[in-house]
This record gives sequence, structure tokens and C-alpha cells, in this order.
Amino acid sequence: MGTDVNRQWRLKKRPQGMITESNFEYGEQPIPEPGDGEVLVQNLYLSFDPTLRGQMVDRASYVAPMQLGDVMRGGSAGVVVKSNNARFKVGDRVKGSGGWQDYFVTGNDDVLSLSKLADGVDIPHALSIFGITGLTAYFGLLDIGQPKPGDTVLVSGAAGATGSVVGQIAKLKGCRVIGIAGGQEKCDWLKRCAQFDATIDYKSENVHQRIRELCPKGVNVHFENVGGDIMEAALGALAMNARVVLCGGISSYNAEQAPPGPNSLMNLVITRSRIEGFIVLDYMEQFPRAIKELAQWMAEGKLLSQEDIQLGLENAPQTFMRLFNGKNRGKQILKL
Amino acid sequence: MGTDVNRQWRLKKRPQGMITESNFEYGEQPIPEPGDGEVLVQNLYLSFDPTLRGQMVDRASYVAPMQLGDVMRGGSAGVVVKSNNARFKVGDRVKGSGGWQDYFVTGNDDVLSLSKLADGVDIPHALSIFGITGLTAYFGLLDIGQPKPGDTVLVSGAAGATGSVVGQIAKLKGCRVIGIAGGQEKCDWLKRCAQFDATIDYKSENVHQRIRELCPKGVNVHFENVGGDIMEAALGALAMNARVVLCGGISSYNAEQAPPGPNSLMNLVITRSRIEGFIVLDYMEQFPRAIKELAQWMAEGKLLSQEDIQLGLENAPQTFMRLFNGKNRGKQILKL
Repeated sequence: MGTDVNRQWRLKKRPQGMITESNFEYGEQPIPEPGDGEVLVQNLYLSFDPTLRGQMVDRASYVAPMQLGDVMRGGSAGVVVKSNNARFKVGDRVKGSGGWQDYFVTGNDDVLSLSKLADGVDIPHALSIFGITGLTAYFGLLDIGQPKPGDTVLVSGAAGATGSVVGQIAKLKGCRVIGIAGGQEKCDWLKRCAQFDATIDYKSENVHQRIRELCPKGVNVHFENVGGDIMEAALGALAMNARVVLCGGISSYNAEQAPPGPNSLMNLVITRSRIEGFIVLDYMEQFPRAIKELAQWMAEGKLLSQEDIQLGLENAPQTFMRLFNGKNRGKQILKL
Repeated sequence: MGTDVNRQWRLKKRPQGMITESNFEYGEQPIPEPGDGEVLVQNLYLSFDPTLRGQMVDRASYVAPMQLGDVMRGGSAGVVVKSNNARFKVGDRVKGSGGWQDYFVTGNDDVLSLSKLADGVDIPHALSIFGITGLTAYFGLLDIGQPKPGDTVLVSGAAGATGSVVGQIAKLKGCRVIGIAGGQEKCDWLKRCAQFDATIDYKSENVHQRIRELCPKGVNVHFENVGGDIMEAALGALAMNARVVLCGGISSYNAEQAPPGPNSLMNLVITRSRIEGFIVLDYMEQFPRAIKELAQWMAEGKLLSQEDIQLGLENAPQTFMRLFNGKNRGKQILKL
């Protein structure tokens, strides 16, 4: 296995509006050599997250933007093939921020540095339920959303990597869970497999009306992954003292200009509610505890990790786009 | 003093868009007689609050809407002229929800029932700094905004009844305070009299740009009374872990359709910040403690109560409109 070159996808052109294949450029480089203290990792799986879209444009955020010509960023997992670092030996299964390429070299001091996978952990699970998206669900729901037993929890982007975990954890905490997703197939899956109590198909149903029907006492916790009209509808249906967890707004990530926000903000006053943003990296010190609890729930059969695994590095741009055209169900992963 | 009829303003037509005199109807009724346990109060001052605009339309909120033909609601203060209630005697100075009329009868069991004014308290102060608007500033800033010494606090509607008190309390708590208000005169007053560190005149300055200039390290607490473009600008300039106190959105109260919300909500994610709404009535049990502290600051010369006092019941509609055309400075009051 492995190639004798390092195939790579680089940022060719910053996107304006929806990303297309023209934003990316394919190339090949020699496989790099690790320097002192460094290791060479062969990527076996790439992980795709909506937040990368924001890093493709030249705008300050919580992570610095990519530069033109950079290898496309992204989480990855694979095996150590060369090591000049005592912490890692050849054959170790690891995950890190390897980017859209076959091989990468990394040192000790990266912020999101390389970590070994625990024995027995499936690599796709390491990138999904035990990765950034699963941890985002865990801390966003539990720390920011503070669900209580009996609460009604509404989740947008419910069939995505984060949303599907949010709903399942909310169920574990004794909540009634309503998911908003696009298409009957996703909705069926959420009810049948992920134990959601009810779903709203935003492609065929009136979201405002259905939220009111399904949440007659209002929404206690809303977990927002989408923004736009869906957020507006959710804010209009809050219960008293509701918590809106602002995780993402994928509906606007490809907009050329920031679209207007929800016109229902004043409902926060009437219902004494709050909207709160968060970044999962702030919880890094608590990741081990969270992963342990998630693994326990998995082992008990109470929590399902759903991955959408595409194949082949040549399909990296198309796989990334699945996040924005609504094709992915669960965590979007590419197997190399 | 007093009239031999009860002059009243009633809700004639629900407003669509900006309120006009045509929404109100003047009439005269006999002075009512108090029944068992009731008192008759002569209003000497009326208090006007933006929130009344919302109660003029037929929409559920935290207070039931007015009905057509109802006497216009509003806080008031005056004297007891007849009493069938042992708690009140003729001549007692009281405040309550008397509405836009010369006289009203009230019993013991109203939610916002009649209360006696403490000796020595000026009636306009009782309706402003020690009334709902002053208490809104107190609890909104301190409980929801949680300002810390050294924080930069931004206040919109800064020259209003609530905003002007918010800024002064923030100064007392060791914060740097920037106020946004309409017109040079208001801005000058905020700096000269209310001790604001700086002001932004939204009528003549670029609010986005000026916030960035005046708050180079970002806004730690934003107290929002206005909404719309001003809120959008404030959300775009938040510091990390900022608190946005959502008190009101007067810019949209007269809109026929709810205008779009701020397009900068995703900045809450990047800055790990929150927007939180509140209703001051939830703090009712703590009002005595707050009034005591506000009075102490007043007595020490650290807090200024600003009232805008107009004259004559015949001018009630015009006086109410001053809240929406930006004419009032401080608490809008009408002396009968």
C-alpha cells in the first residue's frame, strides 16, 4: 500500500459563493522526509468539516486563513511510516491535521498535534464520534445547552456529524428530541436509527409550522448548525429561559455576502432566552473525559456513530462539497 | 387641583407602522368611585415606555395586548384622593399602572399593584431611576451583562431612560463606557453629565467604524436597546466571551414587518459570546435592594437621573411619540 509520490490538493483560488472544483488544484510532490523530532504519517482517512470553508477565504477568525497554494487543510488519520520522535514508532495509528494529501510530516509542537489512537478504536470513529464533530456535539449540548430531563431539544443539521450526536446525547439525558434535516431518507434514518422522537424535512415541510406543531410547549434547547430561515423559525418557538447553542451556520458559508440574520431575536427578550456561541477547542483539556464517556455509551449500544465514507483522494473536492449540497449523512470521511 | 371629569386617552386603532395621533381617541368619563378595598388615585405624572408599542398590537407577548377601546396603559404616579383600603389613606403619594387618564381606581391584587412612595422621593425619580427603566438598567447590566472592572461597555439608546443609567452604573463598576445616541446634543450631555467616556452619534457618524476605533480591544458588554444596524455593528466588534444584553429593539417597534436581524451572529461563535434577553419583572423580589443601592449612589452624587418632562394630558400621544422619533432625553414623563 501507499504511493511513491505525495498526491496533494492545494487551494488554487479563493471561493466566491459556492465552492467548485476550480478552487482546488491537484499536484504531486516527492514524499517528504521527517526532520529531527518529526514523524512521517501516511493518511488513510481524511475528515471534512464545514468550518474549513471559512478558512479558504482571507478573513481573520479563530483559525488563520489558508494561503493560496497551501495544501488544503483537514483532519486525518493514518499510520506512522517513519519516525524520528521517541513518542511514535513506525506502525502507530495516529490522527492529526494532515490535510488533503497522502503523506505529511509533523513535529511535536503543533496546536492540534498528532495523537495515537487507542487500541481497538475504529479509525472512522476516531475522526467522527471521538473527533472534533462528536466532541462539538458533546460540549455544545451539555455545557452550553444544559439540557434537563423532559426538555424539548431541537437540532438543525440533524443528520450531520454533529447534529446526529447532539440528538442522541439529548435522548440519553432524558429529553424529547426533534431533528431538522433535508430529505425523507435522512429523516427516516434519524427516527429509526438515531432514536429521534420526530423530524422535520425542511425540503418538503413548512419548518415554522412544523416546529410549532411538534413543540407545543416551546423549545428548551435549540442546537443550531444551519442558520438562516431555520434559525429564524427556531427562535420564534422558544420556551421560557431557552438556550440556543450557536454551533454553525452552514446555510451561509457559501454566501457571497453575509445574509440577514433572524428577524425573531426580540423573542429572546420575551422568553428570557440566550444564544451562545462556542468553540470546541476551548474544551481541549476535557477531551479525554468526554471521549471516555462517549466510548462508554457506544459500548452500551446507546450511541451510534454514523460515517459517510467516500473513496479515493482524487475525489477530495467532490467529497468536501457533499457537506454543502446536503449529500452527506453523518460524518463526511474520505478513505484513501 | 384636579378636574371634575376623568379625561382619558383610549386605543382607537391598532398601529400599522409608525404610531400617529389617529391611533388614539380622547374622551371624558365621570370620575370613578372606588369599591370595597379599592382606592381612587389622581394621576399627577405619566410614565412612557417603548414596550407599550408592542401591547398596542394584537400579539401574544409577556404582557397581554390592549384591546380596542381600552384606556391606554402606562405607569403613573399621583395621590390617593379616596380610599376604602386600610393600606392607603387620602393624600398618600403612590405609583402604579394608572394609564393615560386623570384618575383611576385600583384594588390590592394587581400584579403591578399600587405602592407608596418613600418620603422625600421626587415623583419623577420614582418613575425613572427607581422605576421600571432604572431597574431594567440595574438588573440588565449587572445580572445579564456581568461587567468587570476594565471592561469596555457599549450602550445603544444611550441617552434614553435605561441607557443613560446603564452607562453610569458601568462607570461605577470601573468600566470604560461608550454610548451610541442620536445627535450632538445628546452625545455632549452623555459625556458632560453622565460621565460616558466616549459617544457615537449614529445620525452623523459611521457606527461600524467608530465602534472599531473606540473599542480597539473589542466590546466586552453590549447593552442593546435599539437593534437593527446598530446591533449588527456591535456584534461585529465583540471581544472574547462578550455578553450582549438584549433589552429592547426600538428601531423596529414601529416596523410593519419584522426587519431582518443582524448578519453578524456567527461572530458569537468566533468570540464565544452570548446574547441574552431578560424581563425586569422577573427580578421583582429584588427591587427593594436595587432601589436602595440606586438611592445610595444618587445621594453620593454618583448617579444622575434624567427626566424629559412634558406637560398636559392633552399631549399624551405626542409625548409617547417622542420615544420613537428620538426626541426624548432620559425618561419620558408627562406632568398632568
